[in-house]
Amino acid sequence: MATPGDGVPECDIAVVGAGLTGSMVALLLARAGHRLTIIEKRADLRADLVTTEFGQMTNPNKRSINLALSHRGIEALKAADLFDRVQPLLIAMEGRCIHSLDGSAKIQPYGHAGQAIYSVARSDLNAFLLDALAATDRITFRFETTVERIQPDGKLTTVDRHGNKQVVSFDMIVGADGAFSSVRDSMSKCSRVNVSQEFLSVGYKELTIQAGSQGEFALASPNNLHIWPRHARGMLIALPNRDRSFTATLFAPWADLDALDADPSSIGAYFTELYPDFVDLIGAPDLVAQVHAAPSSPLVTVKCSPWNTGVVVLLGDAAHAVVPFYGQGMNAGFEDALLFADIWARHARRDVRACLEQFNRERQPAGIALADLSLENFVEMSSKTDSFLFRAKKRVEAVLHAVCPKAWVPLYTMVSFTRTPYDVARRRALVQDRIFYSAIGVVAVASAAAVAVCTGPGRRR
Amino acid sequence: MATPGDGVPECDIAVVGAGLTGSMVALLLARAGHRLTIIEKRADLRADLVTTEFGQMTNPNKRSINLALSHRGIEALKAADLFDRVQPLLIAMEGRCIHSLDGSAKIQPYGHAGQAIYSVARSDLNAFLLDALAATDRITFRFETTVERIQPDGKLTTVDRHGNKQVVSFDMIVGADGAFSSVRDSMSKCSRVNVSQEFLSVGYKELTIQAGSQGEFALASPNNLHIWPRHARGMLIALPNRDRSFTATLFAPWADLDALDADPSSIGAYFTELYPDFVDLIGAPDLVAQVHAAPSSPLVTVKCSPWNTGVVVLLGDAAHAVVPFYGQGMNAGFEDALLFADIWARHARRDVRACLEQFNRERQPAGIALADLSLENFVEMSSKTDSFLFRAKKRVEAVLHAVCPKAWVPLYTMVSFTRTPYDVARRRALVQDRIFYSAIGVVAVASAAAVAVCTGPGRRR
Repeated sequence: MATPGDGVPECDIAVVGAGLTGSMVALLLARAGHRLTIIEKRADLRADLVTTEFGQMTNPNKRSINLALSHRGIEALKAADLFDRVQPLLIAMEGRCIHSLDGSAKIQPYGHAGQAIYSVARSDLNAFLLDALAATDRITFRFETTVERIQPDGKLTTVDRHGNKQVVSFDMIVGADGAFSSVRDSMSKCSRVNVSQEFLSVGYKELTIQAGSQGEFALASPNNLHIWPRHARGMLIALPNRDRSFTATLFAPWADLDALDADPSSIGAYFTELYPDFVDLIGAPDLVAQVHAAPSSPLVTVKCSPWNTGVVVLLGDAAHAVVPFYGQGMNAGFEDALLFADIWARHARRDVRACLEQFNRERQPAGIALADLSLENFVEMSSKTDSFLFRAKKRVEAVLHAVCPKAWVPLYTMVSFTRTPYDVARRRALVQDRIFYSAIGVVAVASAAAVAVCTGPGRRR
Repeated sequence: MATPGDGVPECDIAVVGAGLTGSMVALLLARAGHRLTIIEKRADLRADLVTTEFGQMTNPNKRSINLALSHRGIEALKAADLFDRVQPLLIAMEGRCIHSLDGSAKIQPYGHAGQAIYSVARSDLNAFLLDALAATDRITFRFETTVERIQPDGKLTTVDRHGNKQVVSFDMIVGADGAFSSVRDSMSKCSRVNVSQEFLSVGYKELTIQAGSQGEFALASPNNLHIWPRHARGMLIALPNRDRSFTATLFAPWADLDALDADPSSIGAYFTELYPDFVDLIGAPDLVAQVHAAPSSPLVTVKCSPWNTGVVVLLGDAAHAVVPFYGQGMNAGFEDALLFADIWARHARRDVRACLEQFNRERQPAGIALADLSLENFVEMSSKTDSFLFRAKKRVEAVLHAVCPKAWVPLYTMVSFTRTPYDVARRRALVQDRIFYSAIGVVAVASAAAVAVCTGPGRRR
């Protein structure tokens, strides 16, 4: 990577948002020799974290939220020379553990042996990245500062917590401020940016499965992502934490969530009907208290085009907020940062606008495809994971992939274990699906024909 | 209409936006006996207006913008008892005057004799409505005040021009603050509102055709809406003003506008190629100066769903910003206000939330349909108005409508001369089009068959 002294100019770059994507792009750009100003509307999240028994950093006033780190995110961490230090924060999840209504559980591996995605606490990882940023000498943090306005020429108007307004010019502004991005809002008012924001008919509540009395995981097979698929009624999932708890998320149609919120006395019956083993796991009184206390939150998909105007560019959720069902939100944000830093390095930082144009051109189709993949995967997780045909297809695809590892790559593998652009992966999976189902058709017809020939009137005569 | 003393409760209502829709809804609600606070981010537009020769109110620092008032808007003005006083501001446009590239012009009537739409200066009409509002004693104006936040329960946070923040609770908040609505922005952050904002690949520049030296209209047949259709290259339109000028609008693909802006020396050649008679009309030096000075502006379509949350509701462009090609933006806003006031009166103002739910349910499909109709009418105006088939269809439809005025109503007539909901009109026009083109097919086949029978081998034998 370039460092100051290569003869290429140093730039003053503002990164709006000190979350995961913002921290990652700031790290990669700081390593390339630029001066970074990080503007974040919230306070420094590290101030409120305490370290719990197993080293996990947790804000005692907030529920721990965890995410699934996979190949794309890992590649970005490696590019920032941080992956080795991140590893202790991770818990491998080698497959899905599907919990049926009758209480039985089946494991479906995600890939071949050794392939896994990793559960990581958002606060752990975010604090780690902020520490890494603070360790460089090229970063100015401005917490509790909101963005009031951006201009395409790089002027940034901010307001700090005392209400002081400031206008500063930057060579480039990176908006990594999440699904409800202020940078995008401001962009969409000063330039022709198409934006759509669409809410899912399903919302969620976050719950916790505490560790057992001996400090053990309360669910067997912790190295899996646990799913209770309940089709049109939604699903429950659980990811393991380092402190031996699980963070569980209930996804349900808004009509159901509104009913639970309006009448807490219905919570017990709802879970007994749909998730009886989960009631046993948590205990009814704790479950009712948790569900009652947990807010029902919405799930939004944001599409935006273009992602750039002048010297301003959007990355991560600000450019493409997706529903969480492919576990790719953070990974896509990290990959945005990685791709962006690569293109930036290739441009030798001499033409900001051309670089942003190129990034938008190369990356935007992937953002749109990921939004669609993420919506489609809700159906897969909540409805297909417990179907026989789906499991059979998974097994056949695993065999095909083992036999012809380049010619046949399951969609989940392309998304989670490669850097195949999301749009390319989606198109390729559609072709593979057509071939797969045509082949099933041919086999079915051939079998029927064979049966007919063997048992037909000709034989009987 | 209800008045105070009917025994139904008076309400404190905030209307955000003192433009056309905001003023209209405020007028109708004030007449129904409520207390209104009107919040507008700009200064009072009346302060900068001067009265020109023919009584037209104009801001000498701004280009005069005019709009086409049609049936729906007129009905709202009548409900507010204002139409008689508005009439002197209007210039009837009885049809389209289509200007071909060869300089010839043809008039296409909009409806039957006596049917017309009306050109009106936005500033004239807006000032008139604000004066009418000021004449009631139930209105508080708060100009130069921005909306920072709305809450579903009716709390409204505003900031005045001195930076003073104020939080006030209202029984209802009406967001009529235009395509880039702050109320909608705030709504979409606190509740599940789906929003899309999409820019057209065509932008516009506003120009002026001054009155002739004798104070006469420079274009013959001023009682028409003038169109220079140029297909994929866009179009030019002109609407008459009371001061005998025309406001002309050039609609062109952004590539063309960007080229004109980047190289003003190309302006002459561009107009000579596409609008040679327009060059003669304005004179080349003035035209070049005007085009150079006029900013290129974007055209946006905003769709939003739902329009209500809690006691907050969106009306007009804030709920459904449309491109201007059906001339329905203001008319739809006025009709929103009229329908809203009707529903509000029927609810006897006792349940704000239920009223807003009903308004959203009844009106939203019309908003979506209008957005699509407006986009489709760009193709009609810029490409079809000079085609033989289109003109023939218009004539046949006029005859059908004259013969069966209820069974066959041309789309333009439904949109501009009735209050048929836009969605109903659009569906009905699709059915009519299918019948029309099927009939043409039948006639064509029958004619061919008749010709074949009359001239075929049987005859010759």
